[in-house]
Parts: sequence; structure tokens; C-alpha cells
Amino acid sequence: MKKRYLLAPGPTPVPERSLLAMAQPMIHHRTPQFSEIFAEACELLKYVFQTDQDVLILASSGTGAMEGSVTNLFSPGDEVVVINGGKFGERWGQISEAYGLKVHWVNVEWGKAVDPAVVKELLDGNPNIKGVLSQASETSTTVQHPVKELAELTRDRECLLVVDGITAVGVSDVPMDKWGIDVLVSGSQKAFMLPSGLAFVALSEKAWRFNERSTCPRYYFDFRKERKNLAKKTTAYTPAVSLITGLRESLLMIKEEGLQNVFARHARLARASRSAMKALGLRLLAPESPSLAATGVYVPEGVDGAKFVKYMRDEMGVTMAGGQDKLKGRIFRIAHLGYIDTFDIITAVSAVEMALTKFGHAVTPGKGVAAAQEILLEGYVNP
Amino acid sequence: MKKRYLLAPGPTPVPERSLLAMAQPMIHHRTPQFSEIFAEACELLKYVFQTDQDVLILASSGTGAMEGSVTNLFSPGDEVVVINGGKFGERWGQISEAYGLKVHWVNVEWGKAVDPAVVKELLDGNPNIKGVLSQASETSTTVQHPVKELAELTRDRECLLVVDGITAVGVSDVPMDKWGIDVLVSGSQKAFMLPSGLAFVALSEKAWRFNERSTCPRYYFDFRKERKNLAKKTTAYTPAVSLITGLRESLLMIKEEGLQNVFARHARLARASRSAMKALGLRLLAPESPSLAATGVYVPEGVDGAKFVKYMRDEMGVTMAGGQDKLKGRIFRIAHLGYIDTFDIITAVSAVEMALTKFGHAVTPGKGVAAAQEILLEGYVNP
Repeated sequence: MKKRYLLAPGPTPVPERSLLAMAQPMIHHRTPQFSEIFAEACELLKYVFQTDQDVLILASSGTGAMEGSVTNLFSPGDEVVVINGGKFGERWGQISEAYGLKVHWVNVEWGKAVDPAVVKELLDGNPNIKGVLSQASETSTTVQHPVKELAELTRDRECLLVVDGITAVGVSDVPMDKWGIDVLVSGSQKAFMLPSGLAFVALSEKAWRFNERSTCPRYYFDFRKERKNLAKKTTAYTPAVSLITGLRESLLMIKEEGLQNVFARHARLARASRSAMKALGLRLLAPESPSLAATGVYVPEGVDGAKFVKYMRDEMGVTMAGGQDKLKGRIFRIAHLGYIDTFDIITAVSAVEMALTKFGHAVTPGKGVAAAQEILLEGYVNP
Repeated sequence: MKKRYLLAPGPTPVPERSLLAMAQPMIHHRTPQFSEIFAEACELLKYVFQTDQDVLILASSGTGAMEGSVTNLFSPGDEVVVINGGKFGERWGQISEAYGLKVHWVNVEWGKAVDPAVVKELLDGNPNIKGVLSQASETSTTVQHPVKELAELTRDRECLLVVDGITAVGVSDVPMDKWGIDVLVSGSQKAFMLPSGLAFVALSEKAWRFNERSTCPRYYFDFRKERKNLAKKTTAYTPAVSLITGLRESLLMIKEEGLQNVFARHARLARASRSAMKALGLRLLAPESPSLAATGVYVPEGVDGAKFVKYMRDEMGVTMAGGQDKLKGRIFRIAHLGYIDTFDIITAVSAVEMALTKFGHAVTPGKGVAAAQEILLEGYVNP
């Protein structure tokens, strides 16, 4: 027997409630039965997105909603700023260039957050810039970007702030309306505690105005068409019925826990993970502006990171993520978003300690666990 | 209690085996565990598509794969023929125009199949035409188009035959390689007996050549990128893990039944449905070239088709499809594809008989059922 524990930054574990909801017999999507599920999910999504705007549900992975955010708002030749501090920042730029936009790349060292002053200078110098495209949480580097500060820069300009919140919405506080985010994207397999296959996107009034004059070609990802259908409690094309049925269940769980409590839990798990890794003498990838979704950690000198992650997964049954692209083999990432609680973090920290021992890197057994416990105890009332 | 019976042309019922497969705990998509499931599903898809080519799996509804079939093969300004004999034929044209292609519309009366001679004349007169876009089964009109004959027209020209086989692949015999179909699209919620959320597409060698020179913008639906990833048993973007896990199970069921037996079952159920409706004195929508996926039937004079379908669904628990667009309120459609067998058809026919009685349209009770039985009996060995 090899019991498996999933601690990767997506797909994340799915609660039994949602699994069982999705295992119900199929229903037709153009029925009052499904419309009710769909409408309830849409309402609950607004709560999690912290917006009064419609949140569109797309049958695709998060990248589909990112593409739609480019093609529904901009036109070929439009200038945009792309915050490129990791694999997903790079993706914003690739999508923009695929559709003929002119990209001002703001390259940020992997592991660091963008400096809003750099973006301000670009915007001041180029009044034609129509959009700033960023991540809230850059999953590949476990960095949180200063979205609130970026929103302050775009708010009073003819420029949209387009945010990939795939590992941020429902993870940490990214209040769309309050901060003035124009486009906020997320995906089902992260804080929403669902299998992959759904993407979500909400647009501000300002973004809907941009949509009116955008000329990029599009068909499947047509936000205006989806909004029109959403008003009739349906979707433009066949929705992913079972995933949306599971979505309602997961959203109800988030509502029951309370959004601020969810954020507090994620913050506690993230702090515990960082504290544990530091106690083991390991170096964090993003010490200054860490994401609440995942903690990136450099493997010690002499340890092959790819082998290390593979060992934990195949030998111990504990799946974390490794590094991508230029971080390949150099880091591992402990995810702590979604259906994750205290003892999942204890599992992760303990697996790291035990694997380090097996890889010949001396650590004091239990030292990381003890550091994690100290913080995780904050989550419990006194008896 | 209201027990529900699903007899619509998608989503279709999902077998318990597949439901339970999808209810398993989530696994990470970049693991040997998932790669094995994915690779097995891809292999089995080739069996159902009757092709040696890769079958790509996309996280989207079928429309996404249709869009990709346009954007990955053609360029703005390219001329294509669109067979427009229903709602989905129209969609081919809309997608093509959204990406700047020049469409030669071949409008076909709803309920009729396209006449290949008309297409031949167009191709002969316009040697620049790069593609013919058609449905195999036009779900909205329950018509089967003559795909084999269309393939004979495109085979020796610099022109692709692009086929929406969403309600045809795994339903009836559409052998991609043998007939020379260049692009074949399908979706999970039809013969594949799964929830909606996955699309499939396979390309001929000739189509891959066209892909080399296509300049339409694209990102999420990038077939070349997907093919490259498929060779490594993965996908370009996060795949819909649970749906693909269910897919493998459904494909195994198709393999166990045997593809030709699946086709024979669908043919029998289709014939039984048509025979039953005729026995009740009802007029078929597509008597000349009927699809094996669904049978379209005109409601009798004086009966409101929309109310009729709603009554069967809400009062009797039997969900069939009504008419779309210009057929709204005029027809109902009995689906007989996927996880559907003898007594589902008996249920459908009986529901029609009983509902007609309730709507004041006199029929001889049991007459349709008897006609269906006569054909359905062919499916059983003698005791």
C-alpha cells in the first residue's frame, strides 16, 4: 500500500462532498434543474471574487480565460505592459504577442515581486498603454505581486489592470471591486477545491467598455456572449455540467467557512511552512513577498531537486511540485491552498525532513515540524 | 419521487463505472500515474476515431475544437465551403468569419443532407477553396451528411475536409483514415458517455501540412503544441484530470463492446425510434438521411412542441431535446447514443405516447412501443 498525499499548487485535493456531487447522474444543461445549480454557483463566485460584477464560467483551463482576457479587451497593435516574473507572467506576454499586441516587458527576477515604481514610469512615459497584465500570485516562483499598488496606477488612466488570480482568488485577499482590478481570472483546480477543467473571469465596468471597441478575433472565449447567456442562467456553449455541480458544493464550503477565515487559514499554513523550512536551514525562493498559495524552497547544495521531488512522490507518496524552466531541479514547492489543513502541512514538512535525511543532508529530525506546530497551534482554541 | 431519464443528444447518461472513476481523489497531472491514464485514453481514442493519427484531448466543449480546427489550418482570407444545414453547420461559418476566412455558404434545407454535387460544382469553379467544413451528424436537424462522398471530392485537391463528428464519432461508422477525412472533431458528452468538458480532434498528414502555413492567431487551442506534448504523455495546459480519468473508463467500455457492435446498437435503436414514431402517425424531420444519434420528430398540428417537451421533462421526468432556432416548438428529438439501450427507447416512445394522450392527440396506446419492440428484438439471441 502506498497512501497518497497531494500538496501541489494545483490540482489540489477535492473534498468528498464535491467528489460525490460530481458523481451524480448526468443532467441536461438546458433545464431548470441545471440553471438553478449554475445560477447559485455564479452568485457564490461573486462572493469569492469580492465583486458585484458577473463572474463568467468557462469550460477550459485557466489559460483559456487568460487568452479571452486579451482577445476580448484589446486590439492588434495595442500596447500593454506585461509583468514577467515567472512562467505565468511570460504566458501573458506570449498570448498578447500571439494576437498582435505590442508588449512592454517588465522582467522581474524570479522570486521577487514587481516594483510598482517601474510600472509607473512606463505608464507615465507611454500614455498609449492600454493594459497592465500581471499575476496576483505567480505560482512558478511562489511570489505575491503588489496588485493593490498596481491598481492605484491604472485606476485613473485609460488603462486596464488585468490580473491572473489563478492561485490568488479564494487564497488571499484580492478584493476586486475595492482595489479596482479590471479583470480577474481564476481556475477550478486551486482554491476552488475542484478538478481542473473550469476557468472563471470577472470584468469591471471599465473593462466592459474596452470590450466594446476590441477587435481581436475570438469565438469560443467570447465574454460578451457569455454575459448575455449568464443573464438567462445558461452558457453560450455546452457547460461542463459535472464540474459546475461540484463547484456549487465547493463554493458552499467556502461560504460556510467564511472568506476571511479561509484567507486566515491559508496565511497560517503559509507562515508555518516558511517557518519550518527556515528552521531546517533551507533557503526560501521568495522570502520578501511570498504567495499564500505555495512556498518555494531551494534544495540544499548537492541535492538534485528533481530527484528529491520524485523521491517524495514515488517512494513516500507525497506529491509536491518541483521547479519549472530555469528553476528546474533547484527548488520544491509546498502548496497550502484549498482543501488543506494543519496536518497536511505537518505531513509535508515531515516528508521534507525525512527525504533530506535519505539524501544525506543532515537535519535535526522534528525541528521543522516543531517550528510549524508553533504557528499551526494558533489555529486552535484552548481546551 | 420523480425518477429522471435522460434521452437528449448530449449530455448523455454516464455509466456508473465512469462516474466512480471520476469520483476518485485528485491526482497531479504531471506524474507517471496520470501519464499512464492519459496515454491509455489517447490510444483508445485512436481506436474509436479509426485513425493512426494522434487524437488530441482539449479541456473545452466541442466548439473549442471546432474553433481550433479553423485557426490551426487556415489563414485570414482563405476560402472555405461551409455546409450549413443546421445550427452547427452555421457555427462552422460563424467561426470561419470570426477569423477572417471567406465563406462559400452551401445552405441546405433543415432536415435534408447536403448534395455532394453542389459541393463539387463549387470546388470545380473555385480552385482556391482550401477547405470544406461539414457535420457528419447535424445534431440540430438529426441529419447524417454524406461524409464519405465529400471526402472523395477533397482527397485529390489542395483542400481539407473538416468534419464535426461530435454526434457521429463512436455513434456510426465514420472511419477517418479509410475515408480520408482530414480533421475529425468530437466531444465527451456524446457517444463517449461522459460529462461535458472535453473535446477531441485528430488531423490527417495533409491537415498537419496545412497547419505549417496557417497564420490565424491562436494560443489555448494550439494543435501543434498539443501534439508535441502528447508525445510526452502530457498536455500543453492543465488537463481536465477527472474527466480524462472517466474517459479511459468509458473508452474501455466501448472497446469491450466492440466498435462495430456499438454502431449496430445505435443503428437498431435509431431504426426502432423511427419505426415507432411512424407507427404513431408522426412525421420525421429527417426521413431520408437520418442520423444514428437522434431522431427528430414533428409534433402533430395543434400541439405546442415546447410545452410538449417541457411536459415530458417536468411532469414525467423524461428529458428529450426540443427544436432549436427555426425548429423551436415544432419538433422533439429522441436521442439514442451513448449509454442507451433497448428499454431507454421503450421509455422514450412510451413517454411520447402518454404525453400525446395528455395533449389531446389521440393515438393507439402501445402502437409505437409495439413497432419499436419488433426492431429491438433483433438485438437479442433466442433463448
